[in-house]
Amino acid sequence: MNHSQLFENIVARRSFLCIGLDSETGKIPPFLSDAEDPVFEFNRRIIDATSGFAVAYKLNVAFYECNGLKGWISLKSTLDYIRKNYPGILVIADAKRGDIGNTSKLYARAFFENMSFDAITIAPYMGEDSVGPFLAYEGKWVILLALTSNKGADDFQYHNENGTRLFERVLAVSQKWGSKDNMMYVVGATRAEMLKDIRKIVPEHFLLVPGIGAQGGSLEEVAEFGMTNKCGLLVNSSRAIIFAGNSTDFDKAAAEKAAEVQAEMERHLAGRNLI
Amino acid sequence: MNHSQLFENIVARRSFLCIGLDSETGKIPPFLSDAEDPVFEFNRRIIDATSGFAVAYKLNVAFYECNGLKGWISLKSTLDYIRKNYPGILVIADAKRGDIGNTSKLYARAFFENMSFDAITIAPYMGEDSVGPFLAYEGKWVILLALTSNKGADDFQYHNENGTRLFERVLAVSQKWGSKDNMMYVVGATRAEMLKDIRKIVPEHFLLVPGIGAQGGSLEEVAEFGMTNKCGLLVNSSRAIIFAGNSTDFDKAAAEKAAEVQAEMERHLAGRNLI
Repeated sequence: MNHSQLFENIVARRSFLCIGLDSETGKIPPFLSDAEDPVFEFNRRIIDATSGFAVAYKLNVAFYECNGLKGWISLKSTLDYIRKNYPGILVIADAKRGDIGNTSKLYARAFFENMSFDAITIAPYMGEDSVGPFLAYEGKWVILLALTSNKGADDFQYHNENGTRLFERVLAVSQKWGSKDNMMYVVGATRAEMLKDIRKIVPEHFLLVPGIGAQGGSLEEVAEFGMTNKCGLLVNSSRAIIFAGNSTDFDKAAAEKAAEVQAEMERHLAGRNLI
Repeated sequence: MNHSQLFENIVARRSFLCIGLDSETGKIPPFLSDAEDPVFEFNRRIIDATSGFAVAYKLNVAFYECNGLKGWISLKSTLDYIRKNYPGILVIADAKRGDIGNTSKLYARAFFENMSFDAITIAPYMGEDSVGPFLAYEGKWVILLALTSNKGADDFQYHNENGTRLFERVLAVSQKWGSKDNMMYVVGATRAEMLKDIRKIVPEHFLLVPGIGAQGGSLEEVAEFGMTNKCGLLVNSSRAIIFAGNSTDFDKAAAEKAAEVQAEMERHLAGRNLI
């Protein structure tokens, strides 16, 4: 999937919602514990209920890796389920990997060959050769951390050399490694005021924006400062949607919450005459 | 294991060698392919042959993750084998993880509870809350990326604010998060000339130094510029040791190579009157 195809999907679905399947075992409805794979069963029902409102699902690998082998099975089953039943939807591995070139090749093989993710989040600290191997896959995406939504973003991401903050250098330098068709950037919704500066450096690239909802970011501001004439945004919501309910109709509660977010997104897309 | 205990092990073994079990399936001797778990069988024989020359083993997770579930089984079997048979040896997960606080907690659980690694490498880009959850485990270590051995290190790690380069800021700021008993730093051997500057900021912390051998770093220089009066160094060698041979006596070839490195290390330790 390239930049244009992603925009077409956004227009068709009238949504730029990415749903984060942060399906922590301790937080899924207790009645699911009898299922053979409770996490997959939870995900399957969430996906069936919400897929009409989203263009992407994001699986943060930590939530699966912490369950050992069982967790990797849940992760793979979920990915395969989306692939089979909802082929147009982008599936992101939120893995924040990154190592020396030779080693990154193996991570790329893990996520793009052994598993068929469309995109993976990567930490930029180790530079170009840690990212390159992922960009070698046609039709796949690297989503590079630029300005994250957490408090710790302040520790290093604003480190300022002659007016260029580190996250701005990451944006500027990394653009030479790929294109708007295979690179996106993570920019936290809690930093929405920075989107104006960020759009000066990456006017067209898609941004994956976490931090709406539980972390306090505002969709209104993100759309105002971050939206391009091809949308250019995937806004992620995890807990606020997937844990909207906790009883047997948790999937219905999630769908209602996803529909609300989608409706707000539709208004923003319409306001820019993109749909 | 704390700073003093690690130094005691170094003195007892007359070595500060960390052996990297970068056991790529395509590179292990072909005759092992009949084993039930060829990667584990390779590791087991390498460990049995080399454990007398090393104080630590490092398992880069990419080399296992790329084999899917089988790979995670090889990783866990190797870890458990070292734990059971060589209890004094430090085992490092070279995972370069790091996420927002809530999510890092789950990675910490994966590597420190579900698996019993002593230490994990972490990427610093997301700051304090991405590292804190790992430091909450008594007796475990965070090994934070500071100045890596690869070419891409030049892209961002030297970003310079008023004379402070990013890797120096990482060293300075992160020291407040933990102590020399639960934090180490990755400093590539290919950057040995920087060790003088680094020792001004972290005079006592252990440094994990990759890049000797295949990547071209010099043990001589690393010892000269990086060694403290408690050694303060774990120098990693991976391919040069584990792939020293490729026939049925590959383990003997690895042991010979490890013994050579250990002998050089012993000279450096003796030269500083540490043994």
